[in-house]
Amino acid sequence: METPWEYRFAHRTQKMGSSIIRELLKLTEDPSIISFGGGLPAPEVFPLEKFSEACNFVLDNYGPTALQYGATDGYAPLREMITRHKARYSVSIKPENVMITSGSQQALDFIGRLFINRGDYIVVESPTYLGALQAWNAYGAQYITVPVDEDGMIVDELEKALRVGPKFIYILPNFQNPSGVTLSLERRQLIVEMADKYGVPIVEDDPYGQLRYEGEHLPSLAYLDSVYRGDVGTYTGNVIYLSTFSKVLAPGLRLAWVIAPEMVIKKLVQTKQAADLHTSTFTQMVAFEVGKGGFLDEHVKIIRAVYKERRDVMLETMEEIWPSDTSWTTPKGGMFLWGKVPEKIDTTQLLKKAIERKVAFVPGIAFNADGKGKNAMRLNFSYSTPETIREGITRLGYLLREEILK
Amino acid sequence: METPWEYRFAHRTQKMGSSIIRELLKLTEDPSIISFGGGLPAPEVFPLEKFSEACNFVLDNYGPTALQYGATDGYAPLREMITRHKARYSVSIKPENVMITSGSQQALDFIGRLFINRGDYIVVESPTYLGALQAWNAYGAQYITVPVDEDGMIVDELEKALRVGPKFIYILPNFQNPSGVTLSLERRQLIVEMADKYGVPIVEDDPYGQLRYEGEHLPSLAYLDSVYRGDVGTYTGNVIYLSTFSKVLAPGLRLAWVIAPEMVIKKLVQTKQAADLHTSTFTQMVAFEVGKGGFLDEHVKIIRAVYKERRDVMLETMEEIWPSDTSWTTPKGGMFLWGKVPEKIDTTQLLKKAIERKVAFVPGIAFNADGKGKNAMRLNFSYSTPETIREGITRLGYLLREEILK
Repeated sequence: METPWEYRFAHRTQKMGSSIIRELLKLTEDPSIISFGGGLPAPEVFPLEKFSEACNFVLDNYGPTALQYGATDGYAPLREMITRHKARYSVSIKPENVMITSGSQQALDFIGRLFINRGDYIVVESPTYLGALQAWNAYGAQYITVPVDEDGMIVDELEKALRVGPKFIYILPNFQNPSGVTLSLERRQLIVEMADKYGVPIVEDDPYGQLRYEGEHLPSLAYLDSVYRGDVGTYTGNVIYLSTFSKVLAPGLRLAWVIAPEMVIKKLVQTKQAADLHTSTFTQMVAFEVGKGGFLDEHVKIIRAVYKERRDVMLETMEEIWPSDTSWTTPKGGMFLWGKVPEKIDTTQLLKKAIERKVAFVPGIAFNADGKGKNAMRLNFSYSTPETIREGITRLGYLLREEILK
Repeated sequence: METPWEYRFAHRTQKMGSSIIRELLKLTEDPSIISFGGGLPAPEVFPLEKFSEACNFVLDNYGPTALQYGATDGYAPLREMITRHKARYSVSIKPENVMITSGSQQALDFIGRLFINRGDYIVVESPTYLGALQAWNAYGAQYITVPVDEDGMIVDELEKALRVGPKFIYILPNFQNPSGVTLSLERRQLIVEMADKYGVPIVEDDPYGQLRYEGEHLPSLAYLDSVYRGDVGTYTGNVIYLSTFSKVLAPGLRLAWVIAPEMVIKKLVQTKQAADLHTSTFTQMVAFEVGKGGFLDEHVKIIRAVYKERRDVMLETMEEIWPSDTSWTTPKGGMFLWGKVPEKIDTTQLLKKAIERKVAFVPGIAFNADGKGKNAMRLNFSYSTPETIREGITRLGYLLREEILK
């Protein structure tokens, strides 16, 4: 007989959907499948030796502190390191503008908790990051989707969306997950202006900003807001900015950060107190030891070189093998590109056939709050080696040829 | 001018209360204050050398896995280790009954998310663990408080509470935080029966169960439920059981676990996917390496010896110095005891004076969902050395004498 704990789930009709990405990640555990499905960094680039040194240094010198309870807002030297990094790249902030989170997913969850009331509209890109939708679905968010093209969010469509009175705009400006596209400078400026005009604030999610393989770094929305307000380089507070150590160091640490107005950080800290007290003191101290003295700047150069090669192999193989009525984005950085197939092919159905041929991707529909993306797929190029990428993309190409001829 | 992010906080009247414990933890950063306020383990007992070995072993042998994304339910060998541990102490469970959380606080939060609808009643002890109240306040819980005496929750009062139709009973059976009292065997049996009679399930929170300094280990409610149902040693699923590595190993790792019916674990996993994807792979693998081969069983003996001495010094000093119209509990384990002072002394006021004399505790009112505890205080005996405990308890004793004479 069911206990009361189970009864409520067994006898209600509304089911929470399980994550397509998570189910796919399970497939990647089968080593015979070439998976472009996950969003995993290349394990070859983890700086293992540096990690060992840092662990030993932390335990030898600060052991009792590293294993003890710590501050909810995060390890102070790590917050200061982020402050200096941000000042170099964008706007000057204080440590009081920074909170450490257990991955950016936690920052998204907390933003949902603090700001979303059931039924609130959130403006998102179409397609957008699946994890944000998962986090905010739990708070009853509704979405206004604004399509992206090769230059990111289409601004004319955004203005219509803003007139509906959404709670905030969620945007991934650099090498967006899943599409790989980058928001142009001109559109960045327009979005900042429009957000101000309608009094709608922005969540800028930037996990990949440092993984650029060609072209010039573009300024963040947080910075452009300071320019727009005539207070260049000051953190103006209209943009909550998220980034992470997962892509430039290692995701297994679960370390990310959120930059927000002091008052919002205070609320986020209260939220985190109730949610998990604080993020692991030990991993924060290890990340600080690994990152200090400019190590990450050097390390990220290695990551860029490795991922650029993999992206190039993926693009070249698609060019060579994929049928002419398919298309794809050409990301200037990041970890993903976005493939489009003819109308008659549903990528969720295609995935099942692909798995039979031992290759996997994520169907585009997973990333669209509006049910679009049926003829699209996300392909990750960071995880597999160049040889494997060539093999997997070739298999997919032949599968697509067959499906198109059917 | 406030940005829209800030405006909503600056211009609403309802404020979230900041945590008294957290504010006090800040005081403990001033090394001149003797703090009995926090709930910190003794840093002297962290097994630093073992940790260094485990970090090196994990990075040398499983580095790329340890730094990569991992499964949401937790590192499989760690879940299996918990399964074996639980079978030894109580009931047999499968790994599918276990999820790793980032501290027990996260398990409390997720239970709130899954089970509490705004306005739901939860039965809690009076006093009870502050962190549970903080977690569940966020979901609009209301509390029915059942007082505790030296034998734990008073069962006659519980039956009245169950007739109101609460969502679940929350109980800390062993060396309860904050009171230090332990639920008697007879009451454990009665509570399990009553819970079944009214169809109300139980959350059993057991962070301190292994830290017993005298007397015999008492069976868990999860086990007694199996006895009551005539299925001895089987996990019957009416009791969700929480425990943690924070007290037997190190809190800075943020590692705990929840044991629940498979169906509930699936929902908890979905919740965790949206909340923070998963707990750090690295810390889980390190904890497994430290814990395997029976190390924790040996290590916990050291912790017991250290904490027993500290408890004894605290009790002896109170006996010696504190005025006759004060009283306190005599915990058989754990990290806390509960002091009571005469009616005319408000312990929140007393704390301010105590801090002037460089000694701190947590006022009892912080732990009571019903506003009681004005004349009580929680004293932690695990963190300070015996000499410091003697000094701090003596200072408090003299302060109390003065206040009573006033």
